[in-house]
Amino acid sequence: MRPTPTELFDAVDVIRTKRDRQHLSNAQIDWVIDAYTRGVVAEEQMASLAMAIYLNGMSRGEVVQWTQAMIASGERMDYSSLGVPTADKHSTGGVGDKITLMLAPLVASFGVAVPQLSGRGLGHTGGTLDKMEAIPGWRASLSNDEVLAQLDSVGAVVCAAGPGLTPADKKLYALRDVTGTVESIPLIASSIMSKKIAEGTGALVLDVKVGSGAFMKDLADARELARTMVDLGTDAGVTTVALLTDMSTPLGRTVGNGLEVREAVEVLAGGGPEDVVELTVALAVEMLGAAGRPVDADEVRSALADGRAMDTWRRMIQAQGGDPDGELPTAQATEDVLADADGVLTALDAYAVGVASWRLGAGRARREDPVQAAAGIEIHAKPGDVVRAGEPILTLHTDTPERFGRARQALEGAWKVAPPGATVVSRPVVIDRIH
Amino acid sequence: MRPTPTELFDAVDVIRTKRDRQHLSNAQIDWVIDAYTRGVVAEEQMASLAMAIYLNGMSRGEVVQWTQAMIASGERMDYSSLGVPTADKHSTGGVGDKITLMLAPLVASFGVAVPQLSGRGLGHTGGTLDKMEAIPGWRASLSNDEVLAQLDSVGAVVCAAGPGLTPADKKLYALRDVTGTVESIPLIASSIMSKKIAEGTGALVLDVKVGSGAFMKDLADARELARTMVDLGTDAGVTTVALLTDMSTPLGRTVGNGLEVREAVEVLAGGGPEDVVELTVALAVEMLGAAGRPVDADEVRSALADGRAMDTWRRMIQAQGGDPDGELPTAQATEDVLADADGVLTALDAYAVGVASWRLGAGRARREDPVQAAAGIEIHAKPGDVVRAGEPILTLHTDTPERFGRARQALEGAWKVAPPGATVVSRPVVIDRIH
Repeated sequence: MRPTPTELFDAVDVIRTKRDRQHLSNAQIDWVIDAYTRGVVAEEQMASLAMAIYLNGMSRGEVVQWTQAMIASGERMDYSSLGVPTADKHSTGGVGDKITLMLAPLVASFGVAVPQLSGRGLGHTGGTLDKMEAIPGWRASLSNDEVLAQLDSVGAVVCAAGPGLTPADKKLYALRDVTGTVESIPLIASSIMSKKIAEGTGALVLDVKVGSGAFMKDLADARELARTMVDLGTDAGVTTVALLTDMSTPLGRTVGNGLEVREAVEVLAGGGPEDVVELTVALAVEMLGAAGRPVDADEVRSALADGRAMDTWRRMIQAQGGDPDGELPTAQATEDVLADADGVLTALDAYAVGVASWRLGAGRARREDPVQAAAGIEIHAKPGDVVRAGEPILTLHTDTPERFGRARQALEGAWKVAPPGATVVSRPVVIDRIH
Repeated sequence: MRPTPTELFDAVDVIRTKRDRQHLSNAQIDWVIDAYTRGVVAEEQMASLAMAIYLNGMSRGEVVQWTQAMIASGERMDYSSLGVPTADKHSTGGVGDKITLMLAPLVASFGVAVPQLSGRGLGHTGGTLDKMEAIPGWRASLSNDEVLAQLDSVGAVVCAAGPGLTPADKKLYALRDVTGTVESIPLIASSIMSKKIAEGTGALVLDVKVGSGAFMKDLADARELARTMVDLGTDAGVTTVALLTDMSTPLGRTVGNGLEVREAVEVLAGGGPEDVVELTVALAVEMLGAAGRPVDADEVRSALADGRAMDTWRRMIQAQGGDPDGELPTAQATEDVLADADGVLTALDAYAVGVASWRLGAGRARREDPVQAAAGIEIHAKPGDVVRAGEPILTLHTDTPERFGRARQALEGAWKVAPPGATVVSRPVVIDRIH
């Protein structure tokens, strides 16, 4: 009933449609995303619509159209001139998840180009760009031409998504963060997949985390998210596979930006914690397979052992101004967290460790906050390891020692120790595969 | 988990509470209303919360606290110095609802003061202030001191609510209008009742409209809204009664600002359409009873017949700069809408007539739009009346004749004519009473 002389729809009518559990038409979705990007649909109107979507959901058809509309809000990259297949990985976010750092050069060392447009951390999960910025001189911002040139010369690039890619998603992501509408499967799936499809990758492997340290605490939700995203990618012509992986305990033995880079370099040198290596190899096998260059796990492990992946890593860092031999920052203060009994560690909660690392300065509460490159947590004992009273389970690192208190609060009850000799059933890193 | 150094709560946590169908605490409600009024809770955050309330509802305890928090956002009037009881009426809005115009002076003529703080029309329903402004010279804005002085000298005042009254509701009402969150019983009830309680009336009669021309189309919803509001008023120490009244067909024989003033003056002169007189008298009886000055319907009708109510009306208009003998504006163009068959009118849809009047210029689409004082619709036949082919059912009035076409579109299918001799069961004006 409102006069909309120059607009196809009225925002209130679109909101009411979803509010009243009706199906949004393709034209309504195209209009509302475009009008929001243009500023015609106001932030408060999109917030109301986002909550209606959160509570009433979207059909598969609606999610497909919503994703396409977000892609259409900006530019779409094209790497066909490279003459090689492309593959990318996206993780839904976890604690100690430094896999991208090794995975991009590792896959590139097999001749598949990896255009890895990454984000920064928010909340208790870290971000790949924050980790990479611990490397002296390394810069996250590249132009589209620089991305293409580096993919051609090195084969791998990890950088920030440019401002021209899915501007609708950038606005909506920031809005969801302040309006309690983050944890919605249709909104998460369309946000991730619009970016990844616009980014132009030919193959995509999704690492969908499940467990206390993940956004999806529940296996059924994680499976639904994975299925939704695989369908969206497949519909858009991107070969898409998802692994559901465990995030009940941190990945590897470090959490925090510079600390995780150190561990990544260990893996690239043929060492590192076995859970990190196992997941890196599993994802590399999936990426290479999806890109049409199938390679088995043993071959992938060889590329870590014989220095091929390390060579690509070094060239990748150098191409973005970083010094692969530069010294990583060291925290001004450390404190150990000690076991108070002898026994076997049976659990170490990913969420608690993530929050503690965040409070030490490794993460940010607001998008514009800085992070400490050296802050974080070293993990001396993982589930299944023997611990002794008085020996350290964790070492906390920070440049601002007044943060130790709140970090220790976050860690209260974060682990369990069983009597000596107890056996711990180890969880598989990869829980399921959806394609 | 977000740092909120100076605020008691975080808006996202409050949104999540309601989103996840949990009970908002009193402290959360007090904080979110206060912080929204201060601008600390952003419009998009309140929009998301409003949609969560729309879809997940509020408990009785939450609505009570929400209402109290909105009252506490501004000043509260006090008329105890008048030394007479006070009573007010609120209508949830209908088509042709000019009752306030006669009711305020009528009740005041019995020695009960009527502080009638009113609003403007939005959408297809008219607003009392828009109607009164058709009277030459009349002004809607009075200071609190002027309101008190006029209640003392005249006994009745119809004016705009001052800016100090429930500022939280003013912001939230405007926000709901653009975010598809208007038709929520907890939000409607708390909006109306916060204003009416803050306004300081001792007794309150609610005219809850039900039918096509009302916001509540359904009797069960209207009953729930009435019950919620009566409870809120009673809890706050205001003697509150609600009448559920019919809004399936327009009230009286005029719709539009100046046209309705003309009809109101007819009623005050002892004439006017019977449905309008009946509802006016029923509401006056309720107001006088709730104010502790019970008067029966015959006595109230006498005050219309013998000119007592008209005397108060004239003094009320004059006190606000209006000329009770001034000529009401006349539309520049009129068009008749004709019956196409002989018979008996069995229905005349309130919503269609309201939309048509709105399109003729009597209403506004946006809060800042002007209205035409002379635009509207005269109704020559009401349900039960005999009509003859070629004779007018309606006369459309407007200053902008290009609007006739869209008004006629709104009226398509708006009435039904049965063969001559058919009997129409008349609907009662007052459907139920809730106290």
